Amino acid sequence: MNPRMVKERNARPRILISNDDGVSAKGLRRLVEFVKELGEILVVAPDAARSGQSGAISACKPLRITKVDEAENVSYYACNGTPVDCVKLALHCFRDFRPDIVLSGINHGSNSGVSVLYSGTMGVAQEGCVVGIPSIGFSLLSHDADADFEPCREIVCDITRRVLTEGLPPLVCLNVNIPTTPIQGVRVCRQARGYWSEEFELRPMTGENTDAYWLTGHFVNTEPNAPDTDEYLLSKGYVSVVPCCCDMTAYADLSYIQSVING
Amino acid sequence: MNPRMVKERNARPRILISNDDGVSAKGLRRLVEFVKELGEILVVAPDAARSGQSGAISACKPLRITKVDEAENVSYYACNGTPVDCVKLALHCFRDFRPDIVLSGINHGSNSGVSVLYSGTMGVAQEGCVVGIPSIGFSLLSHDADADFEPCREIVCDITRRVLTEGLPPLVCLNVNIPTTPIQGVRVCRQARGYWSEEFELRPMTGENTDAYWLTGHFVNTEPNAPDTDEYLLSKGYVSVVPCCCDMTAYADLSYIQSVING
Repeated sequence: MNPRMVKERNARPRILISNDDGVSAKGLRRLVEFVKELGEILVVAPDAARSGQSGAISACKPLRITKVDEAENVSYYACNGTPVDCVKLALHCFRDFRPDIVLSGINHGSNSGVSVLYSGTMGVAQEGCVVGIPSIGFSLLSHDADADFEPCREIVCDITRRVLTEGLPPLVCLNVNIPTTPIQGVRVCRQARGYWSEEFELRPMTGENTDAYWLTGHFVNTEPNAPDTDEYLLSKGYVSVVPCCCDMTAYADLSYIQSVING
Repeated sequence: MNPRMVKERNARPRILISNDDGVSAKGLRRLVEFVKELGEILVVAPDAARSGQSGAISACKPLRITKVDEAENVSYYACNGTPVDCVKLALHCFRDFRPDIVLSGINHGSNSGVSVLYSGTMGVAQEGCVVGIPSIGFSLLSHDADADFEPCREIVCDITRRVLTEGLPPLVCLNVNIPTTPIQGVRVCRQARGYWSEEFELRPMTGENTDAYWLTGHFVNTEPNAPDTDEYLLSKGYVSVVPCCCDMTAYADLSYIQSVING
């Protein structure tokens, strides 16, 4: 039997929601709408888009948290920090709201493959996970600000409901990516291996004499035909669910590294 | 037998160095000094301190890279981005300098336990690792800007030399923490479990009518007596070497998660 989170449950589940696209993003508003029947919701999210923030924290910057909206019993707070800061501040400022689950997203764009390492969406899930709360990051494979999130509704509700009931193992959170093509099913799988290539464009700076580099490029999947990877399954129309471990220790390589370092 | 990185080696090893304390930090300058006899060195580091940046990338910000120093055949470049941006830009801008190893640090302060998730120092190592270069993050357990790094010299040289010779398994980088107490030895170990607690102080903002939150707090080690963890070994005067996996998939939990999601 697998270990599960053991914690006191709230009578009605409490759901903390954040993201990295900002408190006004459509993906976040739709996520709230999808899960509001499952419990009491608190939103604390960045005051603007903070994509690519990974697990970053604001070590040397004063943070503010401001209520920006209240609608249908949900309070929306904006924070000038990173996605992880939002989770930390939410837990600090709303001590009576002990979340049973942390949800992140729905991100406008994929967080599959190696992107999980750079993702602010997954930074949120990772932070919830580290403090012992079952956590899920949801992403839709469309960067469109006005993307159609409706096909995510059933998937998001079903996975959230299952995790609320069953919990998750310690130090494990979920990275859920949803294709924009007709959904064929849901598959638990592993992170595809690869890297980002040709990552910068040199562009002139308006009003300045210099050029500057802008991050761009594309993901190179080094195992495009591996059927147990998120990238492959997404390309076939499946929702990918990667359980992500927040203990980074490479257990399988401990004895080999031992021989390298102490040999 | 364990898999190792397979790549063409440069005749004289090429060492890319970055950090998260900035290009002027003493820890970086000492790292260069320690390893300069091992190969040709290129430094690309943040133009100012960027602690806690984790694997963050600058998705929407123009990046500049500027030569700020040249001393004893080492060129120092400063970049206005994150630690990960520095690695990406270095690989993009200096294509003829194909690093055999990426070194990060020496960080002013610990990156043991769960801090690895927030660490810009380890963001650098993670990025090198993802693109297939053996990578190591070094941290000294002192936040003092003028800390004594001399006791790190032998450790840093020895571990770097071993990794240059032996390589590292795919998607594995090393997180090396060095105590300030007399060094008892070097131990390969796992990441201690725990979390940060009481993380914010509310302080008045000078010249403003409002207060703001500043990140603070302390690490709570939830397994203080586990002898195979970095936190424990550091407390006993050992250098800790945690092999870190950049494939976040929780392989041990795949079938359990399958039963939760599809059961």
